[in-house]
Amino acid sequence: MNKITQLFNIRYPIIQGGMIWCSGWELAAAVSNGGGLGLIGSGSMTPEILHMHIRKCKNATGKPFGVNIPLLFPHTEEFINILIKEKVKIVFTSAGNPAKWTSYLKEKGLKVVHVIANVKFAKKAEEAGVDAVVAEGFEAGGHNGKEETTTMVLIPLIKQTVSIPVIAAGGISTGKGMLAAMALGADGAQVGSRFVCSAESSANPVFKQKILEAKDGDTMLTLKKLVPVRLLKNKFFHDLEKSELKGASPDELLKLLGKERAKKGMFEGDMDEGELEIGQVAALINEIKPAGKIIREIMDEFDHARQNIAGIRF
Amino acid sequence: MNKITQLFNIRYPIIQGGMIWCSGWELAAAVSNGGGLGLIGSGSMTPEILHMHIRKCKNATGKPFGVNIPLLFPHTEEFINILIKEKVKIVFTSAGNPAKWTSYLKEKGLKVVHVIANVKFAKKAEEAGVDAVVAEGFEAGGHNGKEETTTMVLIPLIKQTVSIPVIAAGGISTGKGMLAAMALGADGAQVGSRFVCSAESSANPVFKQKILEAKDGDTMLTLKKLVPVRLLKNKFFHDLEKSELKGASPDELLKLLGKERAKKGMFEGDMDEGELEIGQVAALINEIKPAGKIIREIMDEFDHARQNIAGIRF
Repeated sequence: MNKITQLFNIRYPIIQGGMIWCSGWELAAAVSNGGGLGLIGSGSMTPEILHMHIRKCKNATGKPFGVNIPLLFPHTEEFINILIKEKVKIVFTSAGNPAKWTSYLKEKGLKVVHVIANVKFAKKAEEAGVDAVVAEGFEAGGHNGKEETTTMVLIPLIKQTVSIPVIAAGGISTGKGMLAAMALGADGAQVGSRFVCSAESSANPVFKQKILEAKDGDTMLTLKKLVPVRLLKNKFFHDLEKSELKGASPDELLKLLGKERAKKGMFEGDMDEGELEIGQVAALINEIKPAGKIIREIMDEFDHARQNIAGIRF
Repeated sequence: MNKITQLFNIRYPIIQGGMIWCSGWELAAAVSNGGGLGLIGSGSMTPEILHMHIRKCKNATGKPFGVNIPLLFPHTEEFINILIKEKVKIVFTSAGNPAKWTSYLKEKGLKVVHVIANVKFAKKAEEAGVDAVVAEGFEAGGHNGKEETTTMVLIPLIKQTVSIPVIAAGGISTGKGMLAAMALGADGAQVGSRFVCSAESSANPVFKQKILEAKDGDTMLTLKKLVPVRLLKNKFFHDLEKSELKGASPDELLKLLGKERAKKGMFEGDMDEGELEIGQVAALINEIKPAGKIIREIMDEFDHARQNIAGIRF
């Protein structure tokens, strides 16, 4: 038991990242059934589709689960109304101002967690009344902070900034990684990339395969003139890189980005022209497994590593 | 006792980073006297000055200490001859090919450690016969790898790559940081930035003060078209940034960089035009203390955090 398992009434302090195109009801339910906290990633959904995923998730698990809502996306208000209607108890908000919806969500009885990548937004989130923050380091996949602060540095910084629980994200795919995050002061760990490579994730199989093959240096933070995003290197990434090295303007980059590249890559499996969001830990992921097995492996390794550390004497 | 304390015959597995302009004999001796491993950073020295620092260090401590030699710098051969003449027993090599000098150094009885930032060079270093590697993450100050792999991801990757001991570097300034590194599998920790802010470091006092004031986002990896380097943001950094955003060529950047900016900034205290190499952990450093006290604090926090972790049950 710790602050995070108590907050969500779950067995292990492992939160599955709410990831566009990869985390629908099947993954969320599998993680929650495995003792972690599953999240439906609404960022790639319409209100109707989110509604369907929530209903299917409730059928598939009796355990707590949540929904991730990127606040800058167009359907925020409709999404929130669906959560309230369906009595979803946990929401992770990201990409936007936590002051806007937190008190309303709290009034409606939801636990609210906000994703941050710097000290300033950690303070804002706490002031807005959230129950916990996810502190996401530079190594994480997908959208990321401009400060480029890594998990190793971010977790202690956020711990000394807020008094609410802190969930570490970025670079965590194993029990040793979770132990390291907790050594730094985190109360729980959010795991994204490794669950993209779970049997239940809705990532396209060719994207999963590409992640298994990834080595160190195969992901990079890019589009820093727009919103920084960590992508697996592919043709599209190299096109972006070429433009950026020549000093492309935000408008030129927006044009190159176009629309629906994330869907094209991660969901439809276009490995050349798609946007492939994944974390640096891709280099450590070598096998596709059921989410429940991933959780058991993380906990077994966590316990083993903890015992090893306990035995050290200097 | 562990692999690193045994390898160097030291009390604690804390290695002080060998840093240009900041780590002369006074810092190295203070760290070694405190139970860690002090390193003289030769990268900013002439052969005569290095010789003097080694002799003074031997007078100031009876404990093991070492010298860091960046292999791409012009005086490598002379430096190595001085180390052999003065019977220095430990050398940390960086920025260059470990195959060139390792077997010669080993023949002469030195322990050799090579600094790497990716899997490829970790393999090369092990093949060259080094005794250990320093695996340095993206968050570290100064020169850095092109892969941008953070400590959180790099340590487990390097641990699964080599069978020699691994020293973690980048983002470690506290006992919790060291515990996290060891949870990830590291056998020891290299601490740079925090020792720059020690009483015995030769960094200019105004540079030390600037580090104490640094917040998250105040350092950034730059000069990626030449050799990536993490700098504290100042006028010079912003001049670089402006050029890079416009797509400056390597030649234009070299011209802007000019000569002796590191000395100007870190040693002479020019906070506008100098190159200020420091890690992201600058944001966690708030006080200048003697190196020996820093080591005791790290070890006390390490032991305390280890006991807390040992008590967790899920």
